[in-house]
Parts: sequence; structure tokens; C-alpha cells
Amino acid sequence: MANDDEIRRRIRTIPDFPKPGIQFRDITTLLLDAEGLKLAVERMAETVEGPVDLVAGIEARGFLFGAALAVRLGAGMLLIRKDGKLPGATIAEDYALEYGTDRIAIHADACAPGARVLLVDDLIATGGTARAAVRLLRKAGAEVTQASFVVDLPELGGANALRGDGIAVHALVAFEGH
Amino acid sequence: MANDDEIRRRIRTIPDFPKPGIQFRDITTLLLDAEGLKLAVERMAETVEGPVDLVAGIEARGFLFGAALAVRLGAGMLLIRKDGKLPGATIAEDYALEYGTDRIAIHADACAPGARVLLVDDLIATGGTARAAVRLLRKAGAEVTQASFVVDLPELGGANALRGDGIAVHALVAFEGH
Repeated sequence: MANDDEIRRRIRTIPDFPKPGIQFRDITTLLLDAEGLKLAVERMAETVEGPVDLVAGIEARGFLFGAALAVRLGAGMLLIRKDGKLPGATIAEDYALEYGTDRIAIHADACAPGARVLLVDDLIATGGTARAAVRLLRKAGAEVTQASFVVDLPELGGANALRGDGIAVHALVAFEGH
Repeated sequence: MANDDEIRRRIRTIPDFPKPGIQFRDITTLLLDAEGLKLAVERMAETVEGPVDLVAGIEARGFLFGAALAVRLGAGMLLIRKDGKLPGATIAEDYALEYGTDRIAIHADACAPGARVLLVDDLIATGGTARAAVRLLRKAGAEVTQASFVVDLPELGGANALRGDGIAVHALVAFEGH
């Protein structure tokens, strides 16, 4: 199980956010710490396999680690946004929420067919958004074989589901519970 | 007037987004270009004066350049989010929209009094959000004296208004019109 103590001790837990019973793993304290931020980006970069053309970050916290990692890797940065936020022509993908569905989008011309894309977000829980992102990127012709997260909540099964989709999944730390 | 051709040629203009008559300056094409992204972060870093403890990025596009710049400068990254998104105790600030108001927030414990904070966003237009961000950071005790943007729309007056608030404003490129 992923367990980088230098990263873990900089993440705080906020009880009952966004609703009662949820232990929210808050990476803002990691980001505020110059050394922690640098270390997180460096550790994420170390797990990347082979060349990457684009880092795809999921709005909004995935933009933070994604863009810093893109610069570190010498890759471009592709934005995965909530539907309706991108100004150009988009392609979109739905995913299930506890109640209802949500939709993410990318610019239709954002990635050339065969582009090697690394998916990045701050946290993987059930994996609903991340798996939709993989489907969306593959629909655009991207070659998506790896994903990197700061935090994994393995009990929620998202990382394993992503692995089932053919993605090598890396996370810096894992937390028990939801 | 700010006019970095290497950056400018990588920004595309999307007409009539988000509404008719608006020429949207789209930095996603700059981000997708590995060389352009690296260059933008480097050029932003070059305009920074003196040591910076924290880079404060405005959700969501300010997170992209902000986090990359924070790593480049060896600073931490502070999140300025729409109200209700941050998990911990927050302080907030309202700002006027064309119709009504909106509210941004930071974690109440995000910055130590006297912390030297650089404000970052992708674009400055009327400056409503950026000026509210400065008020908010100062309310938290931060020392905010400079702000960095990729794009300035000088006709909308935001950069000058920020200067009136005692902020040194840098932008990589300026575009005519709205």
C-alpha cells in the first residue's frame, strides 16, 4: 500500500465534509508547504513510466498537481473540465453519481491520435470521474496507460477498477476508510 | 504593453464565448504545448520581485499557472476558491458581478501574518475577482504586493485598478478589446 510518510503527515483530515460521516483528506496543507508541494510533484514524476506527451488534469484540484507535473516532465497540459466550461468544440462523457449523473469534457482537438497521456488528480475514491476521463481520452484517440494520484482510498475500489481498465495506477499515500 | 510573441501565438481566440460579442482568449492551446507551458511559467517567474512565501491561485485556471510557478519559485500554493469548496474553516470576500455578487474564500489558517503572497491567475479583465482576492489575503494578514497574469485585457481596466490597490501587476501578453 502506498505510504509516503513525508506526504502523509502534510495532509490533514477534516471530519464530516462535505457531509456527515465523510473523513475528507485535505491536500491544501500539503500544497501550502513549499517543501511538501515540491516533494509531491517529484515523487509523482518518479512513478511515471516512459515518455508522456500530455498530462491530463481533472478540474479543479487535478489542475494543481497536473500542471506542475507537466512542467516537470516536459509535457503539455490537457484540461478535463466540467461540461460547459471549455470555450471550443468539445467531446464529453457522462458518469454516474450517487444520485444522477455528471459530465466531463475535453476540447475535441486537444490531443492528437496516439498521444501518450498521463491522467492526474489529487485523489481517487470510487473512480467514477477518473474512469470517465479515461474513456473520454481514449475516445479522442489518446493512448492512456497510466494515472497518478496523491491520495488513494483503496476501500472505495477506484484504483482497482482503473487497473481493470488497463491503467497502471500510482498514488503517494493511501488512507483507510471513506 | 505586455507583448510576448512566443506566448501570444500559442493563445487562440474563440469568438462569442461565453456569450455573443465576447472574444474569449483561450489559454488551453498554450497549456497543451509543452514548450509554451514551460516558457509561460519561466517568463512569469522572471517578473517576480523578491522572495515569495506563497503563490495564491484563483480557481480554476489560476491553479494551473499558480502551482507550476509555486514549484518553480520554491513557494507553497494557496487556493482561492469559490465559497463552499474548501473543507476547513474559511474567510470569504464578496465581489460584484454584472448582475449580483459572487464570493471567494480561503482557509482561515492558510497564511501566517506577514506571509509574502504572489497572486496568480490566467487573465485579468475588470479585476473584480483579483481585487477581492487581494482584500481577502490582506484580511488574513498577508503581504500582497504583486500579481502575475498570462493575459491582460487593458481596456477593461482591471490591471490599473489593481495598481491603485498597491499591487505591481505583470502580464505576459495584452489583447485589445473585451
